[in-house]
Amino acid sequence: MVRKFVSFISLFSSFLSWLFSLLFLSSKPLIGFDFNGQTKFSDQLAKIRSFWQKNSQTILEEYFSFLSIPNVSTDTDNIVKNARWLIKALEKRGLETRLLNIAGAPPLILGELRTRGSKFTLGFYAHYDGQPVNASRWASDPWKPVLLDKPREAGGMPLEISAYDFSLYPEARLYARSASDDKAPIMAMLAALDALYACRISPSVNLKFIFEGEEERGSPHLSALLKANQEFLEADLWILCDGPVHQSRRPIIYFGARGIVGLELTVYGPARPLHSGHYGNWAPNPASLLANILASLRDAEGNILIEGFYRDVRPLTGEEKKALEEAPAIDDDLKKELKIAWSEGPGSIYEKILLPAMNIRGLSSGNVGPSAQNAIPTEARASLDFRLVPDQRPEKVKSLIEAHLKKRGFYVVYSEPDEETRLKFPRIVRLEWEEGYPPARMPMNDPLARAIKKTLEEVWGNQLIKLPIVGGSIPLYLFSELLHTQALILPMVNHDNNQHGENENLRLRNLWDGIEIFSCLFSRFNVSVEKTR
Amino acid sequence: MVRKFVSFISLFSSFLSWLFSLLFLSSKPLIGFDFNGQTKFSDQLAKIRSFWQKNSQTILEEYFSFLSIPNVSTDTDNIVKNARWLIKALEKRGLETRLLNIAGAPPLILGELRTRGSKFTLGFYAHYDGQPVNASRWASDPWKPVLLDKPREAGGMPLEISAYDFSLYPEARLYARSASDDKAPIMAMLAALDALYACRISPSVNLKFIFEGEEERGSPHLSALLKANQEFLEADLWILCDGPVHQSRRPIIYFGARGIVGLELTVYGPARPLHSGHYGNWAPNPASLLANILASLRDAEGNILIEGFYRDVRPLTGEEKKALEEAPAIDDDLKKELKIAWSEGPGSIYEKILLPAMNIRGLSSGNVGPSAQNAIPTEARASLDFRLVPDQRPEKVKSLIEAHLKKRGFYVVYSEPDEETRLKFPRIVRLEWEEGYPPARMPMNDPLARAIKKTLEEVWGNQLIKLPIVGGSIPLYLFSELLHTQALILPMVNHDNNQHGENENLRLRNLWDGIEIFSCLFSRFNVSVEKTR
Repeated sequence: MVRKFVSFISLFSSFLSWLFSLLFLSSKPLIGFDFNGQTKFSDQLAKIRSFWQKNSQTILEEYFSFLSIPNVSTDTDNIVKNARWLIKALEKRGLETRLLNIAGAPPLILGELRTRGSKFTLGFYAHYDGQPVNASRWASDPWKPVLLDKPREAGGMPLEISAYDFSLYPEARLYARSASDDKAPIMAMLAALDALYACRISPSVNLKFIFEGEEERGSPHLSALLKANQEFLEADLWILCDGPVHQSRRPIIYFGARGIVGLELTVYGPARPLHSGHYGNWAPNPASLLANILASLRDAEGNILIEGFYRDVRPLTGEEKKALEEAPAIDDDLKKELKIAWSEGPGSIYEKILLPAMNIRGLSSGNVGPSAQNAIPTEARASLDFRLVPDQRPEKVKSLIEAHLKKRGFYVVYSEPDEETRLKFPRIVRLEWEEGYPPARMPMNDPLARAIKKTLEEVWGNQLIKLPIVGGSIPLYLFSELLHTQALILPMVNHDNNQHGENENLRLRNLWDGIEIFSCLFSRFNVSVEKTR
Repeated sequence: MVRKFVSFISLFSSFLSWLFSLLFLSSKPLIGFDFNGQTKFSDQLAKIRSFWQKNSQTILEEYFSFLSIPNVSTDTDNIVKNARWLIKALEKRGLETRLLNIAGAPPLILGELRTRGSKFTLGFYAHYDGQPVNASRWASDPWKPVLLDKPREAGGMPLEISAYDFSLYPEARLYARSASDDKAPIMAMLAALDALYACRISPSVNLKFIFEGEEERGSPHLSALLKANQEFLEADLWILCDGPVHQSRRPIIYFGARGIVGLELTVYGPARPLHSGHYGNWAPNPASLLANILASLRDAEGNILIEGFYRDVRPLTGEEKKALEEAPAIDDDLKKELKIAWSEGPGSIYEKILLPAMNIRGLSSGNVGPSAQNAIPTEARASLDFRLVPDQRPEKVKSLIEAHLKKRGFYVVYSEPDEETRLKFPRIVRLEWEEGYPPARMPMNDPLARAIKKTLEEVWGNQLIKLPIVGGSIPLYLFSELLHTQALILPMVNHDNNQHGENENLRLRNLWDGIEIFSCLFSRFNVSVEKTR
């Protein structure tokens, strides 16, 4: 435990850092979790920093060994190797571990570190599996980590681990599958424990860890595994460590995530393609039917026109509204990057993702372009995803959409309609629902939420961006609904990490920042709770 | 010239035919152009019939030699062989011929037969090229004609030409590329001339023929060729011989054809696919934009919502309305065959094709089904064809559609928008227009139209179906606008001929009927003009 946070040394160091920022950084965009302008620079943080600076080679060597094990969740042999590596790494650090198996699923790894006399338990989630790779599109072997002095597209050249000096290479990148998504937070947590031990700083709370092995497949067994281990997984708060930090490279914390429900929608025309001249405007055109359905579901401004769709949307609190205002405006830069002169409806991107979305992810009917034929297609399909916000529920959303279609005269089927059905009902729509899951959002003024903010702000000050929700869907609800524990999301990696694609990479600065973050969370949370009480 | 048409023999033969129909055909669907119930059965027709019955082997042998020459319009060597075969066939029958060449185009073949003292000239059009073949999908070589005793799917077995007896094999089929589309009417015209000569019946009018060699490529040079040969192509009426007869196998005549204009429509989203969770209902979704455009252009009942779109639609005359009522009702059978329980809006198929149509021939955006990703697509495309009816013009239709889009806030471009354009204009739509061509429809009470009907009704009586327009697009306008001559369409082949696809075939009965049709048109038109004056 460290009690003194403001010392002369830290003040002096803070002054030097501020001076440095004036000299070198003032005209540059902010990179990394800098400590400029930070007045509460603690002894502890200086020690942690000193630790990873001195031990960067050892940390990277350990990370290289982890990244060298292929980790596609269907590659059973290798997934088991990853799990063994993790168990060993946790046990080396004195954690009690469990390896939970379900037939046909990669093992779920649990780790626990008890802190004597601690009243609180923090849980951390990350996943050790990665997206499948198309190796031919990678510049190097996805499972042979490569360290470059800057991003490859900026002309990055190989760096020796032994020669790596973080201060000389602020944009150094580590290329490997899962270098960012999602082995990075795992490595940072392990190194944070090493740092605390080396600096003789004790964790202030009990720590629990879950490392999942099939997140990229949609976590098909996570719900069952959590349910079966509810007792072991008891905690005061779960922190999900996945996804990238803000595009400005500023750190970010999300107190919720949108839910999701996917839908494949098919409408039918004639049983065979028909000459559009001989049958056009007599035989039903399924593409037109589909366009009319989609236009009835939402307008081009993103407004969902389904009756009652917004009824369950929970209003924002004053604190949530304030958080949106404080977040750095990115809309103009984003539009430029994406080459768009508009966004859907009024409101910033932060405001928009606090509303439900209906996204058309695909359309298909007949043929377009050079292969288009003068024919009436036999069917038309749209693939949709609905992003849900609290307190919407997937089942409710499904029933509203079905009611909307029925009201418009459609006969709803759930599989390919047979001849009898087709001859009986004029307008048939086939719905193939994905199961989906609900959104979750914890109140920003929850005592534990305030303690987390406090801890992180001790490191980052006003650089920390707080947002009520992340636009993407993350099954936070598993924690809030199955484990009856609030959960939030703490991302760590760079946004330009090519996550899921080829040449996935980690900006090393984000790894070092991660080590500092987790060190503080492990060791300072208790203090923050006291301070925010 | 034949003067006596109603003789005792013909009356007796008519009676026998009627009796035969009672005995054998009453319970069967009507097949072929039967003469049942026909009281005016002429001597002449009996002679013609007798001719083809006696000479069927010779006629089929000549047709086999024609069908054995591959006829894809881009296969220059073979196309020239087809042209030479035709020139020889026409010259053998005493016609004056011309072979018109344009660089890069198959030759257009002209033939002329003058009839001493004739006041009228009838022109006939057909095409000798065929659709490309996918030989692997054919049951036999597309250019090695095969004669079967019935359709292949009904278990047809090979027949020797020499053993072929039309009365024993009413459903005999000839399999070859272009057996129907469109060498069949050419062969029927040649055999009709042979029949007239053999029966010592003289044509009653001057005859002109055009045989085109690139219809299946969209007739890119026909307009230029017609323009350059206007004088030679002077006629009182042009008869286009292409397409199938009615699905009931009853003969049909169309006094017009819909025009067409094609459009490829593209709208744009973000420059790269975006995560639909992080950006959904902020970044513009192009598929939604497209659905809204399409729904604004037409409703699901086929009604076109573009302002002024129907303004130029010429009202139907009383005779045209009557013709629609007289045509056999096919909607219910068609719906059953096509497995649909409805058609777009009220009205029979005959009524609907007298209106313009907007057909969506294809939709494409992102991905659907198993390959769908939770992403906002970068663009969405629709491929459309508009079917036009008199007196709509393609240029006018294009300007109405562009005005519609502009009114709805779209910035119209005609090629891929560059970055500057994308950043300047919120809603951009790219339009790629096909040139298209206008519709045409001659009045059914035009004196020449009446004479044609009279001639055909002498053969078919009330079996003849008369329709103001065919739904498909055929460039009749080239004749009416370039040659300033009315034109109509006289189909000859069976509707179930697999035209354009594999195993194209001709129902032989339709060939024999064709020989009778052309014999009558060549020899009786003059008389019909007198009778309908």
